[in-house]
Amino acid sequence: MAGFRFHHGAISVPDLEQAIAWYGDMLGYTLEKRFSVPPASSRAAMLRKGEMRVEVFEIAGASALPPERRSVPGDLSVHGNKHVAYRVDDFERALADFEARGVEIAFVVREAFGKGFFIRDCAGNLIEFVEELAD
Amino acid sequence: MAGFRFHHGAISVPDLEQAIAWYGDMLGYTLEKRFSVPPASSRAAMLRKGEMRVEVFEIAGASALPPERRSVPGDLSVHGNKHVAYRVDDFERALADFEARGVEIAFVVREAFGKGFFIRDCAGNLIEFVEELAD
Repeated sequence: MAGFRFHHGAISVPDLEQAIAWYGDMLGYTLEKRFSVPPASSRAAMLRKGEMRVEVFEIAGASALPPERRSVPGDLSVHGNKHVAYRVDDFERALADFEARGVEIAFVVREAFGKGFFIRDCAGNLIEFVEELAD
Repeated sequence: MAGFRFHHGAISVPDLEQAIAWYGDMLGYTLEKRFSVPPASSRAAMLRKGEMRVEVFEIAGASALPPERRSVPGDLSVHGNKHVAYRVDDFERALADFEARGVEIAFVVREAFGKGFFIRDCAGNLIEFVEELAD
């Protein structure tokens, strides 16, 4: 297997423009490109922050986010791909920054196995931030 | 907002040991640590490949992967966090390599907006690999 590196996490959302605005305002992602996906009435965007991307899909007729996916224990209670986690240098500072800007905090972990917290994006999707000792 | 960088994608699976083996054999991740999560009968592992991680949870009593999540169009047809995508230097070579090793190929994209393909892990979870021009 040749090497690979992280490119993006993909999200299906109810409102593409709202998501582009939220990921820009709250996480600093900028719009890299827009494109269409089948079916023809569906739209997508690639958002970029350095080497990282978030790919956002607005699919015509898509079903709503299953309610249990808004909470960390609820989400993990169904098998499947779950959240994407990002590393921050200072957990408490990052948490305070999100709180100060009115971002929904879903879950805070201060356990022996790790420190992290989860926020919800504008559509209720969980995003984790973790602190890890430098390598 | 302070800076952040990719740390891991999280997956809820039916069999932790099977997942640890598959991510090791097929993608080259090594076991970084094991830990317990509430409820007490649940287990987790952090797998590592360089700076990237995959966090795998085996949650007691968790529900099965919703069948539509095994296909790319089906997965996108429900709002929520979807797959994680990794960049490869040579799309065709990576695809051929996975095929030669018997990995399930779920979807191949050769479109104007991008080239990529999706595989399924041992539990049916989608993973994308994309080729992108160097920056």
